[in-house]
Parts: sequence; structure tokens; C-alpha cells
Amino acid sequence: TQNYRITLLPGDGIGPEIMNVAVDVLKLVGKRFDIQFEFQTALIGGAAIDATGEPLPSATLDMCRNSDAVLLAAIGGYKWDSLPSHQRPEAGLLGLRAGLELFANLRPAKILPQLIDASTLKREVVEGVDIMVVRELTGGIYFGKPKGIFATETGERRGVNTMVYTESEIDRIGRVAFETARKRGGKLCSVDKANVLEVSQLWREEMNKLASEYPDIELSHLYVDNAAMQLVRAPKQFDTIVTGNLFGDILSDAAAMLTGSIGMLPSASLGASGPGVYEPVHGSAPDIAGLDKANPLAQILSAAMMLRYGLNQPEAADLIENGVLQVLQQGDRTGDIMSVGMNLLGCRAMGDALIQI
Amino acid sequence: TQNYRITLLPGDGIGPEIMNVAVDVLKLVGKRFDIQFEFQTALIGGAAIDATGEPLPSATLDMCRNSDAVLLAAIGGYKWDSLPSHQRPEAGLLGLRAGLELFANLRPAKILPQLIDASTLKREVVEGVDIMVVRELTGGIYFGKPKGIFATETGERRGVNTMVYTESEIDRIGRVAFETARKRGGKLCSVDKANVLEVSQLWREEMNKLASEYPDIELSHLYVDNAAMQLVRAPKQFDTIVTGNLFGDILSDAAAMLTGSIGMLPSASLGASGPGVYEPVHGSAPDIAGLDKANPLAQILSAAMMLRYGLNQPEAADLIENGVLQVLQQGDRTGDIMSVGMNLLGCRAMGDALIQI
Ligand SMILES: CC(C)[C@H](C(=O)O)[C@@H](O)C(=O)O
Ligand SMILES: CC(C)[C@H](C(=O)O)[C@@H](O)C(=O)O
Repeated sequence: TQNYRITLLPGDGIGPEIMNVAVDVLKLVGKRFDIQFEFQTALIGGAAIDATGEPLPSATLDMCRNSDAVLLAAIGGYKWDSLPSHQRPEAGLLGLRAGLELFANLRPAKILPQLIDASTLKREVVEGVDIMVVRELTGGIYFGKPKGIFATETGERRGVNTMVYTESEIDRIGRVAFETARKRGGKLCSVDKANVLEVSQLWREEMNKLASEYPDIELSHLYVDNAAMQLVRAPKQFDTIVTGNLFGDILSDAAAMLTGSIGMLPSASLGASGPGVYEPVHGSAPDIAGLDKANPLAQILSAAMMLRYGLNQPEAADLIENGVLQVLQQGDRTGDIMSVGMNLLGCRAMGDALIQI
Repeated sequence: TQNYRITLLPGDGIGPEIMNVAVDVLKLVGKRFDIQFEFQTALIGGAAIDATGEPLPSATLDMCRNSDAVLLAAIGGYKWDSLPSHQRPEAGLLGLRAGLELFANLRPAKILPQLIDASTLKREVVEGVDIMVVRELTGGIYFGKPKGIFATETGERRGVNTMVYTESEIDRIGRVAFETARKRGGKLCSVDKANVLEVSQLWREEMNKLASEYPDIELSHLYVDNAAMQLVRAPKQFDTIVTGNLFGDILSDAAAMLTGSIGMLPSASLGASGPGVYEPVHGSAPDIAGLDKANPLAQILSAAMMLRYGLNQPEAADLIENGVLQVLQQGDRTGDIMSVGMNLLGCRAMGDALIQI
């Protein structure tokens, strides 16, 4: 028997209900593969603010550190939107990324044949799209200093943030990206704004340096504005994309939306060692929270990513991923991916359908 | 007779050939409306580098300053891509924007019924899309300091750029955006990353302040990642978008690509006073330069924007814009927008078709 300690962070909105379903799926898979999960639950985001006044209590970070992997659902909601930024749910997420040194964020955007009509793009444009965005997650303008709102000499206020990357930060995310491309189609596109930004010039230089260590990988470069265009124009040209924190935030969401069903997309945030965090790309959807309407599949696929990347249990991950394809194949749909002639299920029922497979 | 002095900046690649066509159209329109254009041509970009060693010779900037409006075609090409950044064609463009204090960049993305099938998005998703992106153009991370590549204490290199906005910079672009929305559908969406960046928090605060002066305009806010998603998911929700320099670069290109025909899209860059710069959104397309294959319509529509925004000649602008719709209606197409059953024309022939209308 393999034993794993998993920290669950259900967070806010639909978080708890999709997490419950994912845990049930994990328990079943555990039985099948003789894996024993020890689950422990902790507070983050708005739920943590309400209970403790802080979006990331130190007890939560400690518990995450002392586990083999962290499964996160979603954070945030209107309720906390007017708090000062360091007290908002998002600060909890950024603190978790920084605290666990999760510098590599893997965000797949893959078109599932069963859901291709959910895309707003034409079938022939998106059929077969399978993109992995590797986003740097603990550097860049998200964390660079100086940052803040300062008074100028004239008394006017001035907002400042700093986009910074060091050679070693670029090198380590670059390596993850080249390795990822190697396990996929062997093509890596690095996205920057090197025609304007010095930080991007360093980024490009380091990526080019790394390329000589990965002669089997075809490296290309795109400016971020062109990359945003190309994702809309011809998304099939992309295999693996590597980029900084801010560009990755924007492009991974654009790529995700090409699929038309962000309720289906998982992500993984990984460090050099220690536990990774696995979470859906979608948000906490406060308007449908508690109504048993949420799509639990991105959460379930995040659990599969956890098995694959965090716990080295690829067969268990395969079982879940194939199960998800099967429930879709048999026509089961939650509201967000519903179409004519399919079976509309709630969150819990979708989980049950999967478990019955 | 109205007299206007127009500086022409043909630049690189297909620039000269599309500029020639646009000038012929302007001459004809001038005769029709008793407008006298005095054209003067200057060097910018790669052409200027080759001739003078600098991407923006001071003679060019002086000539632009002493004119009523500037019509620019396109800059850049592989040839100059390996030069250090301050000697590259792009530096000329950034210098022109800074030198003329062109803080407001207007980028329309409008679906033309005749070209709707060129979009990669489904007809029902893009039919009727008419978005104006108002991008701040002389501030933000494009110009903020410190910027550069510096050595850290450990000897490692560190790339740095700074995203900065002052209250007054936000205020002046905000006013342009609210006024623009007022002339359009009355809806303004401000895009920022206020859940992470302090500079965006100041941006949002100032936009909210301005809203009280424009009670007839409906102001909303989106985070930039969500805006990139929403452009793909449901572009019709947008009327006017206002955002900073970097986010505007990315989102205006994504919005442009929704139309499927960026060879059709003009733009205007305006200051508080003095001449504006009018240019197509597309680039210099070096691979088809000199082959008489380029689509001149974005350049021609940029001339129309010049007449409308720079010279206050709305009827002349209308004439050109209607003429463009008519050539499309009669089936004339350049290669980039060609489809089955249409007449394929070269750059010059497309201009002639328009002139014959
Ligand atoms: C909530 C927010 C801070 C976060 C980010 O910008 O990284 C989110 O958009 C994401 O992509 O995970
Ligand atoms: C060429 C480049 C410097 C420029 C920019 O980033 O502003 C271009 O992408 C644009 O949008 O006009």
C-alpha cells in the first residue's frame, strides 16, 4: 500500500461541493490501485478571511508543507472584493504559490472531441487543439519590487509595479518547459515582448541558451501581442508555450477559452521539490455556489494531474481521465457544457456517473 | 480651399506600395471636397536605419511636428531584427509616439459583413462585433524606469522593466475613452489587473472617479485575463475598451484577429494637441514586399481616420469608408481576404477599383 497525505483546500463558492466529489473519486481510485489517501482540510481565501481574518493562515501553509500534494478548489467572491488587496482571497493564493515556491504552472488547453461544439471557434480551427502553457508563477511583475502607490514631488500619486526576472529564474522555468515539450510534440514556443522590454530580452537570450541543451526540441519565439493573435487565428500551430507570470496569466486564459469549456480544465503548480498544488482553471462561481449545479470535472481532472505529476501514479491518472471521457461520451453534461439531446446532471450526480464507470 | 500638410512615413516592407495607393485615394478625395494636400515624405524604421543609422532621424520628427497629420505605413523586418533594441525599427515608432506625445491610441475592431467568413470564430459569435480599444500609448511598462539589464550582487543578470502610471496620465486617457464611448454605444469597459497590481488599483480608482463626470456612460471593469477570455467567448458584449499600454497591445491584437482580416484595420494615435499618427494595425509583411500583393485597404482606412479625427473632414472620411465597403461588395479581394468566387486583385488594382467608384 502506498500512503499519501493530501491537503484539501476547498476555498470559496462552489469550491467545497466540487472538492467533495473529487475526494470521492480519489477514494475509489485509491481502492482500485491500493493507494491510501490521508486527507486533511485547511482554510484559504474568503473562507479563511471569515474564520481567521487572514487569506492564508500560517496553519494552512504548514499543513500544505507537510503533505505530499495539495488539492485546491477555488477562491474569491464579491463578498471580499472591497477589502484592501493584501487582505483579499487572491493574496492567499499568491502567498501559497510563494510559500511553496511553486514556480512552474502547467495549464493544458485541450479540445475534447465530445465538447468541440462548445467552442466559439469553427470546428476546423480548433479540432485537435492540444496546448500546454508553462507559466512562470513566482516571479515577474506579480512579485517584483518596488511596488505600491507612492506620492510624487508634486503630490500626485503614482502606481508602480516592477517586472523582474533573473537568469536563474528564467533558466529553471525554461528547463521545465523544454522537458514538458519533450514529453509532448517536441515544439516549444517562448512568448515575450523582447522588441520593447529588456526583461524580455534577457528571457529570450536564456531560452536560446537552453535550446542548445535540448537539440531535439524545436524552439520558436513570439511577441505576446502576436501570440494572442495566433491563438485566435490558428491555435493548432502550438504545442508547448513557455512565458512569464503576467503573459502566462493572459494567454493561458485565452487558450483555455478556445475550448469553450473552462469547467473542464485542470492545472498544476510545481516547485523544485515539495508538494505541488493542483486546481481547476475556473473560478469560485459564487452565483451558483451551493446549488449543486457546478461542473466538478475540472476538479476531478486536477486530482488526476496530482496523481500523474505529484504522486507518480500515471495508471490511476489514466483511469480518471478515461472515465471523464466516458461520461461525456455517454452524454452526461452539467449546465455549463449542456447541449441539445444530452443528459443534464448536477454536480453530485456527475460525480456519481463517473464513479459508476 | 482647405490646405493640409501631411507627412508620409512609408517605412519598410509593403509600406511604400500601400502608401502610394492611399495617397492616390487622398488626392482624388481632395479634388472632390476642395481639399489641398501638401504631402512630404520622411524616413522611419529600417529604411531610416539604412539611410542614416537611426530609426527616427530628428529631421523626421521635426517634419512630423510641422504638419497637420502623419500617415504611417509599417516598420520592421528580419533584416534589422538582430540589432540592439534602441537601434531597431521599433525604437523609431516608440520615439515617434513619445516625441509627439501621442498618449491615446484608438484601435477599432469591426466585423464587416462582406468578410465575416474570414473570422475563425463562428458567424453567430462575431456577427455585428464593433469594438473600439482605447490604449494608453506613452506610459506604462513601455517607458517606465528603471529599465535595463543589471548585474546583481551575485554577478547574475537581472532584467527589469517598470509599469508606472500617475493619476494625471490615467485621467487624460480616461477622458478620451469616456468621450469615445459617448460617441459610440455608451458602454466603457476598463481593463486592468487590480487584483494583483497596485498600478492597476490606481488605474481603477481614477476610472471610477471619472465615471461621476460621465453619468451617461456605463463603466465596467474586467481583469485582463478575463478580458482576453471574454473577447473569445462573447465579443459582442464589448463597445469601448480602455486599458494601459501593454494590456492594450495584447488585447487590441486579439480583438483585431476576431475579424479574421487584419489587413482591413486602421488605427489612430492622438495627443492633446498637434498632429496625430494614422497607421494600419498590420505589420510590414516583408515576405510579400514589392510583389504588388499587399492589401492597401487598412492604409486607406487609416487615411479616412486621419480625415475624421485629425482634419475634421467627416464627409471625406465617409466617402472613403463607403467606397471600401463597395469594392468589397462587388467582390474585389486581395490575397489575404480572398475566398471562392471573388475577384483576386493586387495592391495597385485594388486601389484602382476603389478610385473608380
Ligand atoms: C486570482 C489571480 C491572482 C490569479 C492570477 O492572476 O494568477 C488567477 O487569475 C490565476 O490565473 O490563477
Ligand atoms: C512594434 C511594437 C513596438 C508595437 C507595440 O508594441 O506598441 C506594435 O506591436 C503595436 O502594437 O503598435
